[in-house]
Amino acid sequence: MKEKITIIKVGGKIVEEQDSLAALLDRFSAIEGNKVLIHGGGRSATRMAERLGIESRMVGGRRITDSDTLQVVTMVYGGLVNKTIVAQLQARGVNALGLTGADCNIIKAHKRPVGEVDYGFVGDVDKADGLMLSRLIEQGIVPIVAPLTHDGNGNLLNTNADTMAAETAKALSAHYDTRLIYCFEFPGVMRNPDDADSLIPTITRESYRTLLADGIVSGGMVPKIDNAFNAIDNGVGEVIITRADAIDGIQGTHIIP
Amino acid sequence: MKEKITIIKVGGKIVEEQDSLAALLDRFSAIEGNKVLIHGGGRSATRMAERLGIESRMVGGRRITDSDTLQVVTMVYGGLVNKTIVAQLQARGVNALGLTGADCNIIKAHKRPVGEVDYGFVGDVDKADGLMLSRLIEQGIVPIVAPLTHDGNGNLLNTNADTMAAETAKALSAHYDTRLIYCFEFPGVMRNPDDADSLIPTITRESYRTLLADGIVSGGMVPKIDNAFNAIDNGVGEVIITRADAIDGIQGTHIIP
Repeated sequence: MKEKITIIKVGGKIVEEQDSLAALLDRFSAIEGNKVLIHGGGRSATRMAERLGIESRMVGGRRITDSDTLQVVTMVYGGLVNKTIVAQLQARGVNALGLTGADCNIIKAHKRPVGEVDYGFVGDVDKADGLMLSRLIEQGIVPIVAPLTHDGNGNLLNTNADTMAAETAKALSAHYDTRLIYCFEFPGVMRNPDDADSLIPTITRESYRTLLADGIVSGGMVPKIDNAFNAIDNGVGEVIITRADAIDGIQGTHIIP
Repeated sequence: MKEKITIIKVGGKIVEEQDSLAALLDRFSAIEGNKVLIHGGGRSATRMAERLGIESRMVGGRRITDSDTLQVVTMVYGGLVNKTIVAQLQARGVNALGLTGADCNIIKAHKRPVGEVDYGFVGDVDKADGLMLSRLIEQGIVPIVAPLTHDGNGNLLNTNADTMAAETAKALSAHYDTRLIYCFEFPGVMRNPDDADSLIPTITRESYRTLLADGIVSGGMVPKIDNAFNAIDNGVGEVIITRADAIDGIQGTHIIP
């Protein structure tokens, strides 16, 4: 029987504020056994870009990443946010190791082809290396993954953290009984974001089609749920979308086949 | 018999310019067997601080690191410089892994006590974890170390890269036959920096005392050579100070007991 692993994806809003980050890291530290944390950091990148006089341009929630912006996200995601988390987890007795996709070649990607939009140095993931990650994890190491990949030709690429979480979970599911938890500021997928009681407890492929058709699921939630189904369809045992204070995975929206 | 390992420390000036970095990484890639790269990045940090309107204050070549400056060096050393090197080494087939002292707890330090000068968030190294590093290296991983440590209480600390190189070499000498090479823009320790033929080929404890007394060795070279002797006295087989284009270690100044 495979060992269990928990993969937590946490968005920028939570990791970028001192109090919510501390609370998250307390909870993450309490998770028993193998674990991985994948983080965002977009708001900090936007603020840093602004301080440097670099304009942040977003299309459909994705950052257009020219070479100046790539420098900013490399500094903010790979440096400031990632190493702050690593140091604070070490203080909690978690043997954290900060990684981008370039480190140990764990996640390779290619530059997104120019279509209607030229996203610049944005990566679409080709493959995560589950074997390399599992070798690190077997030594008691807890990977903390920043949303950057590389193309194998020396270029770093700004990459969606939700996708990186799904690809990491898929790759690790060959080695572990894998649970993927997307956490953010809401209790899960809601019928009505203003009504705390409108949480959708489970989403199946079939119910997802209806939710999409009815416009209940839209915007940034669509790629998140697409990523969740991609994971479920490729060996990941369980995907849950939930609030950052509920990363035990009991509450929230469970994505099931 | 222990396996060999080569530890290269390279200063900011070389890693911060595209051409000299590429040349260095070509040479580093060509080194056979186990290896570690430890880099600086001070000039980039100064430039980034300036762009952010943060004043860089130096005392005796060391940066006064207040909390704003700590953010800058975390971004620049741990993010920009480190991850750029990692991605470019991966493109050369080197399985690079970027690390600060906080990652896997490889180098712990304490905040330098306030004396005549309050250096702020600057770390004095307590201990490098040679066993953890050797476990990574045994898997074919090549550690790329940024000049940041942590105090185990959640704080990152700006740390001298020469010292980190010496401490890393000392810690690894329990597991490997260790060679430490400090490389920079000069051919080695010079009697007269303006005379290329004035290279001092070897320095012993005894000759060092004379060089110091005669004022031939001074300034930033003193802590570098002190670090070299510290390494030699603690199990490191060989320490060489040389130019970045001579990291095969044949030329340069050899520090011997």
